[in-house]
Amino acid sequence: MATPDDEIAATDTREAIMEATFRALKRRGYSDLRLRDIGEEMSMTRQVIHYHFDGKRDLMSSFLEHIIDQYEGSVDVGSDADPRTELDARIDQCLFGPDFEEFSHWDRMKVYHELFAHARNDEEHRETFTEHYDRIRGSIVEVIEAGIEQGVFRDVDPVRVGQLITDMIHVARERRLALGHEDAPEEMRASIDDFVVERLCIDEES
Amino acid sequence: MATPDDEIAATDTREAIMEATFRALKRRGYSDLRLRDIGEEMSMTRQVIHYHFDGKRDLMSSFLEHIIDQYEGSVDVGSDADPRTELDARIDQCLFGPDFEEFSHWDRMKVYHELFAHARNDEEHRETFTEHYDRIRGSIVEVIEAGIEQGVFRDVDPVRVGQLITDMIHVARERRLALGHEDAPEEMRASIDDFVVERLCIDEES
Repeated sequence: MATPDDEIAATDTREAIMEATFRALKRRGYSDLRLRDIGEEMSMTRQVIHYHFDGKRDLMSSFLEHIIDQYEGSVDVGSDADPRTELDARIDQCLFGPDFEEFSHWDRMKVYHELFAHARNDEEHRETFTEHYDRIRGSIVEVIEAGIEQGVFRDVDPVRVGQLITDMIHVARERRLALGHEDAPEEMRASIDDFVVERLCIDEES
Repeated sequence: MATPDDEIAATDTREAIMEATFRALKRRGYSDLRLRDIGEEMSMTRQVIHYHFDGKRDLMSSFLEHIIDQYEGSVDVGSDADPRTELDARIDQCLFGPDFEEFSHWDRMKVYHELFAHARNDEEHRETFTEHYDRIRGSIVEVIEAGIEQGVFRDVDPVRVGQLITDMIHVARERRLALGHEDAPEEMRASIDDFVVERLCIDEES
């Protein structure tokens, strides 16, 4: 029977594997990544990877979940925050932070955007990625739905507007990473406000 | 002295090299591309590549210019078209077309987006790419400036709004290519209208 100590150990091991995956992806990129590269980034024997994960695709799926959890878990709004406050916090989170221990926001985003780009060349990876992408977009869509329900947002199509905001966040990060436009995230934050959120909010235009 | 026939021959040769470059990029991707791969896609000897271009970077710069020229040259508006019509035509062009001979719009966009993504890992390529990217954004910015001058668009910051429209176009193509969201360009077309162009136009809101 698993004891609480065993569970902590298993969580720690998975956490160590996730961090090793980050380092390996940063170093090698996704297409050339082998499980042994991840093993080389760990102090443990790489057999633990095979014990915890059923191959590269399974590991990558957990890895994407891990990144998303870090973002979702660190959105700092109370459960009674109004939808506008929560929407703002989520957009800021996706554009600007958070930093975790050894990996900055942009270290993580570099890896995330490489995983995104790689989906164009690999049908299996695309499937894994799309599952997780839906969850990322979903958290924006949910806040918009809540806002409409509470009467603070206009009665828009929440999926369409959620997709638009997700797209705007994505492209600003992409442009910073690919072309080095350092101010793209701040510029986009202002544009999301002026062109989308302001129109979404019922109060601000009345 | 170069005769008109020589000039036509030189233009044809460069055109043939551009098409061979497309095929080679589609087949091998940018990072592994060697000039000899382009040579293999041509019926001519690959020495003509070295005669016309001073290495991979010079060729890629011409290649980017070639793609942009195809887009700019095929925007089908008269010189006296009003800014709104021209803006619409340019956005449609970037999102949906045109097809040229053996390469469809999406064949070309796949290559273009790979060149964009590659800029994140290669400082020299980034420099070349950025020059051409500025021209792409510039043609949208110019139409907005003309519209403001003619009093049909509001007095916005043309560079900021031009960048936003360029970003929105980019991310819709990217999402279609990477995640296979076939309807992303059509959805984005509607969003650009509803959230940006409609607010830009003075008539529509008065």
